[in-house]
Amino acid sequence: MMASLKRGFLAFLLFAASCSDLSAPKRSSVTVAQSDPLASWNDGASKRAIVNFVTRVTGKGSPEFVAVGERIATFDNDGTLWAEKPIPFQLLFALDRVRALAPMHPEWKSKEPFAAVLRGDMTTVAATGEKGVLATMAVTHTGMTTEEFSTVVEEWITTARHPQTGRLYTAMVYKPMLDLLAYLRNNGFKTFIVSGGGVEFMRPWAGKVYGVPPEQVIGSSGKLKFEMREGKPVLIKLPQLDFMDDKEGKPVAIQTRIGRRPIAAFGNSDGDLQMLQWATAGSGRRFALFVHHDDATREYAYDRKDKLQQFNKGWDAAIAQGWTVVSMKDDWKAVYPSRDDQVSQK
Amino acid sequence: MMASLKRGFLAFLLFAASCSDLSAPKRSSVTVAQSDPLASWNDGASKRAIVNFVTRVTGKGSPEFVAVGERIATFDNDGTLWAEKPIPFQLLFALDRVRALAPMHPEWKSKEPFAAVLRGDMTTVAATGEKGVLATMAVTHTGMTTEEFSTVVEEWITTARHPQTGRLYTAMVYKPMLDLLAYLRNNGFKTFIVSGGGVEFMRPWAGKVYGVPPEQVIGSSGKLKFEMREGKPVLIKLPQLDFMDDKEGKPVAIQTRIGRRPIAAFGNSDGDLQMLQWATAGSGRRFALFVHHDDATREYAYDRKDKLQQFNKGWDAAIAQGWTVVSMKDDWKAVYPSRDDQVSQK
Repeated sequence: MMASLKRGFLAFLLFAASCSDLSAPKRSSVTVAQSDPLASWNDGASKRAIVNFVTRVTGKGSPEFVAVGERIATFDNDGTLWAEKPIPFQLLFALDRVRALAPMHPEWKSKEPFAAVLRGDMTTVAATGEKGVLATMAVTHTGMTTEEFSTVVEEWITTARHPQTGRLYTAMVYKPMLDLLAYLRNNGFKTFIVSGGGVEFMRPWAGKVYGVPPEQVIGSSGKLKFEMREGKPVLIKLPQLDFMDDKEGKPVAIQTRIGRRPIAAFGNSDGDLQMLQWATAGSGRRFALFVHHDDATREYAYDRKDKLQQFNKGWDAAIAQGWTVVSMKDDWKAVYPSRDDQVSQK
Repeated sequence: MMASLKRGFLAFLLFAASCSDLSAPKRSSVTVAQSDPLASWNDGASKRAIVNFVTRVTGKGSPEFVAVGERIATFDNDGTLWAEKPIPFQLLFALDRVRALAPMHPEWKSKEPFAAVLRGDMTTVAATGEKGVLATMAVTHTGMTTEEFSTVVEEWITTARHPQTGRLYTAMVYKPMLDLLAYLRNNGFKTFIVSGGGVEFMRPWAGKVYGVPPEQVIGSSGKLKFEMREGKPVLIKLPQLDFMDDKEGKPVAIQTRIGRRPIAAFGNSDGDLQMLQWATAGSGRRFALFVHHDDATREYAYDRKDKLQQFNKGWDAAIAQGWTVVSMKDDWKAVYPSRDDQVSQK
């Protein structure tokens, strides 16, 4: 079917060439036939659905044509653009930071959850529950200026390695999703991240890794305080949560930050369901896609019964609405970028 | 001085032409000499400061060159991009809405502040103070979906007229600031609005009038509630304030929404001071500008002692820091667009 689509596209180009000047279209038809912008995707229903949608909303003269400015696409981050196991990477960052800051906090040796973190006793850390997580987030994410925090994140993201794969975290982004982001942008889409993760944690590297500039990264955020320090203004990160960008929060964030409804939305868990509902409820052609983690060999396998990142109500909605559900196992030729790709991203 | 700058620019182009192919630069040098992107500005210190800044941060090989993605400029709206007297236009919108909704609310005839609004008794309206304003805002701005509100704003902005000038409100934008927005964008800047006004009030028309798309409009906002109505998701505007985008709130909004520090910021009152401080505290060449309302003949004259929009601390800071203070009277050839310009904006 993909081959027939390609043939159809080639036929269209040849038809266009016969109607106008022959030289330019002939050259571009060769380019199109040679390079597949979604080369990391296997031919199948998911890839076809993506290409079909993009063709319908961007094709000149298409009855479902959408103007460039209105081509807004929103992507969840954890589990959609990069991995999120064994726990979301921002929490692994917080644990690394507790270890790095420990020499300045001798009292942590006898204070939970820090003592357990330093001992590597994850069972006790987990037992401290939400209170423990909040305490860990507070000491690692707040009480400093936004610029100081950004510097810490930049250093961590370029050096820290995943406990199971030994890879840099930015080498655990999904190659097919990088291709998809680029494909959409090359077709006039503006791509946004709309993530439950912290906005100040994602921005320092989202530009380099995903090609998404800071102003198109939306996430959860803590309160900030403006103050003058030695005559210079700074913004201090406070330990109070300001906005939680998850579930019902995602359409709210899209409305307050972007101010227009996406025509395409991409997620992987129930936390993304409302974003996909919001995107698909607009008029005209819409697209919604869930990444299904069903590849225990190359990545992780989890869905309806996962404790942290459940894909259950979202899956039911996808089936009922006919949304695209990507099988990482069947639809993706590769999961992570090869070493060469990583270099080329820098 | 402006003339000498132009001569310098022409000399540069002629020099460039002598180094390479002669045909193209020759043509563009003629264009430059003929059209001034800031034609609505009188030659003077303000205009020179703007052109000097843009030249320094965009000139190839300039030691103060700033990459395109980092060329962020933020603009206040009320009093900076359009007029704000006798009261901010969003409040005039609210009063118009009370009158329009009155037939559905017979009880308003005996309930303040609505009764006073309907009688046109502004003294009594003013006497209801903050409580009265909040009550008026609540009945006119909340309890409906975001899409319903947007439709109401669009209808009002294309039909309602200012009580003193009889102009459409969008005909009370400042022509020199429209030129400035376009000049910056043509030089690779991304222009943002960062206003104390409501974000949902500005977005429906900011694209058409200012060329600023919804995702680059930042403002104050109320809380939103996501809910399903007959199987379709909607966002309901609630009467609780979520974020006040004024004073210290402006740098906070810039950080949470844009995520990078502007290199240029534009305002007109003390509510913009922190935004200008934030923008100018970054490294490299920076630019800050206040519009001073000193033209009682063509617009309004108010500054240090104004009750609603004071320009006092900001003015002191501008003098101390050497920021640009625009005299509307002396620096602007025209204040509002001519009828022809208005047509061309549509």
